[in-house]
Amino acid sequence: MPHARTVRCVCITIRNQPVNPRSLEKLEIIPASQFCPHVEIIATVKKTKERRCLNPESKAVKNLLKAFSKERSKRSP
Amino acid sequence: MPHARTVRCVCITIRNQPVNPRSLEKLEIIPASQFCPHVEIIATVKKTKERRCLNPESKAVKNLLKAFSKERSKRSP
Repeated sequence: MPHARTVRCVCITIRNQPVNPRSLEKLEIIPASQFCPHVEIIATVKKTKERRCLNPESKAVKNLLKAFSKERSKRSP
Repeated sequence: MPHARTVRCVCITIRNQPVNPRSLEKLEIIPASQFCPHVEIIATVKKTKERRCLNPESKAVKNLLKAFSKERSKRSP
């Protein structure tokens, strides 16, 4: 019997608000798969440990990824 | 008494090998913090659930992030 291919995305609601990179504990990127047809981006907030789903298409997320790449080149040896 | 600021990076060994985006379950980006002075990138492999630390400076990681952005624009509605 084939496995049932039900939609199992992590994110239900997605936020479009900008996120401060300094307030983030981590950012998870979950690629599209058989379970969820689109990429999911989940930000964990440092203080509250709240997990927020972000819109991968938004400027906020693009800026976040850019911010991390800048941080890399500044701080890594 | 102040908190001790010990180094608590997640990654000990870092791989430079290229990673196939299709084989990944998720990618975690942990920004530099008081606990770890550099960005950490952790890839979870689908089949084995193995977590691999990647070099944020490597072409492989830059290509991964690019691959995800392409996937986004292709698959999201």
